[in-house]
Amino acid sequence: MKVRVDVMLKSGVLDPQGEAVRHALGSLGFEGVDGVRQGKVIELDLAETDPDKARASVTEMCEKLLANTVIESYSISLDT
Amino acid sequence: MKVRVDVMLKSGVLDPQGEAVRHALGSLGFEGVDGVRQGKVIELDLAETDPDKARASVTEMCEKLLANTVIESYSISLDT
Repeated sequence: MKVRVDVMLKSGVLDPQGEAVRHALGSLGFEGVDGVRQGKVIELDLAETDPDKARASVTEMCEKLLANTVIESYSISLDT
Repeated sequence: MKVRVDVMLKSGVLDPQGEAVRHALGSLGFEGVDGVRQGKVIELDLAETDPDKARASVTEMCEKLLANTVIESYSISLDT
């Protein structure tokens, strides 16, 4: 089963990577870019086939490793 | 208008970051993780309100800056 995890900095947390992208887009002549936030996508290929168990397992992975929950939020989506 | 860009390494391109995550998950006792790929999410907040123009503009941003199209593929989704 394929599972996709999005990890983004929580709103209010400074995102220097996103700011760098915003400045670079401005330098390239792109106008009207009001904000940029950058995050991570992690695509997991799991042997688990039960959606509930997969979600529970991936939630634990996020809490333990994939996201820094102090400053990052995550969302999990199962590819069916 | 909010636009979301996913940038992933093309399949076949070695993903050391994903491999590192896979090993780390194994070390933490998570079993049945057959593969991990890691990519970027970029959330753009655009002044543009026309969906077609927004998509065209973001496609150009991807080609010029956001993705390295030699090794990465991107997908654009507009938040409506």
